[in-house]
Amino acid sequence: MRQKYAKRLANIQPFKVMKLLARANELEAMGRPIVHMEVGEPDFVTPQPVLEAGIRAIREGRTKYTPAAGLYELRQKISTFYLSDYGVEVAPERIFITAGGSGALLLAAALTINSGEGLLMSDPGYPCNRHFLSSFGAEAQLVPVSSTDGYQLTADLIRQNWCQTTRGVMLASPANPTGAILLPDALTEIIDYVGQQNGHVIVDEIYHGLFYSNAASTSALEISDQVVVVNSFSKYFGMTGWRLGWLVVPEDAADSVDKLAQNLFICASSIAQYAALEAFTETARQEMETNRFEFEVRRDFLVKNLRELGFEIPLEPQGAFYVYAKLPANIINSEDFCSRLLEEFNVAITPGTDFGYFEADRHVRFSYARNLQVLRSGIDNIRQALKVLV
Amino acid sequence: MRQKYAKRLANIQPFKVMKLLARANELEAMGRPIVHMEVGEPDFVTPQPVLEAGIRAIREGRTKYTPAAGLYELRQKISTFYLSDYGVEVAPERIFITAGGSGALLLAAALTINSGEGLLMSDPGYPCNRHFLSSFGAEAQLVPVSSTDGYQLTADLIRQNWCQTTRGVMLASPANPTGAILLPDALTEIIDYVGQQNGHVIVDEIYHGLFYSNAASTSALEISDQVVVVNSFSKYFGMTGWRLGWLVVPEDAADSVDKLAQNLFICASSIAQYAALEAFTETARQEMETNRFEFEVRRDFLVKNLRELGFEIPLEPQGAFYVYAKLPANIINSEDFCSRLLEEFNVAITPGTDFGYFEADRHVRFSYARNLQVLRSGIDNIRQALKVLV
Repeated sequence: MRQKYAKRLANIQPFKVMKLLARANELEAMGRPIVHMEVGEPDFVTPQPVLEAGIRAIREGRTKYTPAAGLYELRQKISTFYLSDYGVEVAPERIFITAGGSGALLLAAALTINSGEGLLMSDPGYPCNRHFLSSFGAEAQLVPVSSTDGYQLTADLIRQNWCQTTRGVMLASPANPTGAILLPDALTEIIDYVGQQNGHVIVDEIYHGLFYSNAASTSALEISDQVVVVNSFSKYFGMTGWRLGWLVVPEDAADSVDKLAQNLFICASSIAQYAALEAFTETARQEMETNRFEFEVRRDFLVKNLRELGFEIPLEPQGAFYVYAKLPANIINSEDFCSRLLEEFNVAITPGTDFGYFEADRHVRFSYARNLQVLRSGIDNIRQALKVLV
Repeated sequence: MRQKYAKRLANIQPFKVMKLLARANELEAMGRPIVHMEVGEPDFVTPQPVLEAGIRAIREGRTKYTPAAGLYELRQKISTFYLSDYGVEVAPERIFITAGGSGALLLAAALTINSGEGLLMSDPGYPCNRHFLSSFGAEAQLVPVSSTDGYQLTADLIRQNWCQTTRGVMLASPANPTGAILLPDALTEIIDYVGQQNGHVIVDEIYHGLFYSNAASTSALEISDQVVVVNSFSKYFGMTGWRLGWLVVPEDAADSVDKLAQNLFICASSIAQYAALEAFTETARQEMETNRFEFEVRRDFLVKNLRELGFEIPLEPQGAFYVYAKLPANIINSEDFCSRLLEEFNVAITPGTDFGYFEADRHVRFSYARNLQVLRSGIDNIRQALKVLV
């Protein structure tokens, strides 16, 4: 018999962390002091100039539809940002304002892949990216990566895994859950190879801006004007709940993307767009840079302490705010560990199985989106847990 | 050779009205007094209590992600609204908050149809609905409707047009562009028939609330708990630019929709959600009801005057804020008429060809989203135009 609902639903798994999160909330409601190291959302507030611009937008009645591609002024500001921060010219006409990075990913998928085709992606990787493809009847062609590959696809891995139905690659830098970045040379090789196959290179740059130490902060746009780049105001710009992101496409795709955006979204939030006009001011940028330094301190603390506790972190994460770590030797089940850590030791973290299949059961993701004090309690509790659970 | 971008792009047409709108803006920039009767956005401002709640949300830092399904409190308020305004119980767990009606339509399509399948829809109809299906590799199976059918699909039409690949129907009440509504008996017959085929009934109710005279304002939810209903805060609630809507699904679909929403959207704008909590207060509702009465006055003015000018409007529109009219006898090309009306007589309206194929070239859509003064100038200019163009 025919299934009642669409087949794609079977290919989309709910995040395991959601069940954990619900349970964490339940425990908190019962008075348990839960330490949140599972969250993908910084604890920093939206920069003050952006908040004020948002309030002004509402006061001034900027509550109507904008063009589907977004306010032209905002597209211009992003264009200027690419010039000032990356030294690359990106015409405003190639930039589309979307409802979060999610809206941009959806447009990127709708633009590039047909049903029955696929994109190569790293395993581990951000699970939504797989599911965007499933939604369009396409498949994520997962390629296991490890610390040996810098937790990123390489031109070699792409060559080895490219198959009949492959239409391109979806990369992320900095990546979730590993915090790994793509180095300029590696990215260039990938773009060259995929270009030879007439394929698409889609790069998720939603954690761009959150680079630490001397990490190379190259955007794929510096290398080629043929890539599709997804970005967001959520992470570096501190605007998660506002739901605002953007997509950059090659010039010859702009008309198609505009058509898709008109039909699929009408437009992104007008208030968020007017607010984001202030995200590039010096005052706002200073707040963001202060937050970035704070993230770096958190990362250093967390990596050092987790290593001391026996978690394997072969590569220091270079960006984003996650540490992807191999469990200490005697712990063999990631989901089970996460569940016991929450139930018995009040710490919420994300099992590796949310990010793919390759050694997923041996890995977990720690987020340093919360402050040092939280991280300290987390480490203390985990130390206690390991005495019992290992 | 393989196409560079996805095939679906060929099946999605840009709205013709967008080109007209761009030209209208150009003319306005040159100082021409353009009369906007093409717009799908009311000129009323967002109700005051909602604006204030939006500002408060920003001030209080409610700028973080919410659950994917939306704030539970808002889902509860919508549930209460169904009870108070429709007398029907809809559990909050069946209600999902989305980024506009668009987000809800996207979830509805992703939930119900596989690639290669289709939904029956009326022609004329809202063009985005067709394109949501195209995006998922499915097709809109268009059924011509006319004033004889009340501009709506009927159980008979559905029976006659149901084919191998049909998975259900997508209805709209009140409908864009016709303002036609579905009467309770007709809706019941449709739901019964589609239920016998194990199909889906999706009802676009985004213009709900905007009913005039004694029009029956039945929601499909009053008839069955197995329908999928799309609604929005944009139209009746006056929140277009905030991008907030909702989807109601059968109980057995709730987990799947939650999974889809987590992956495709993360969540709708937190600020818009907190603001919308105030949309159901008596003060806000009073503003909305005042606006509704104003719309009715506009409708009456526009229908009467257009008829006097020779436009055929066989059925008085019962809801929304559009009049779908057959062109006077000697005008044979809708797009050509719209273009000349703009260029030579400063009036922007939408050609019928944006809404389908059936007699589309003989029809145009007038919007009464703008005030009476605008409509009066519009009618005056159209009167002049008809002297020349007929």
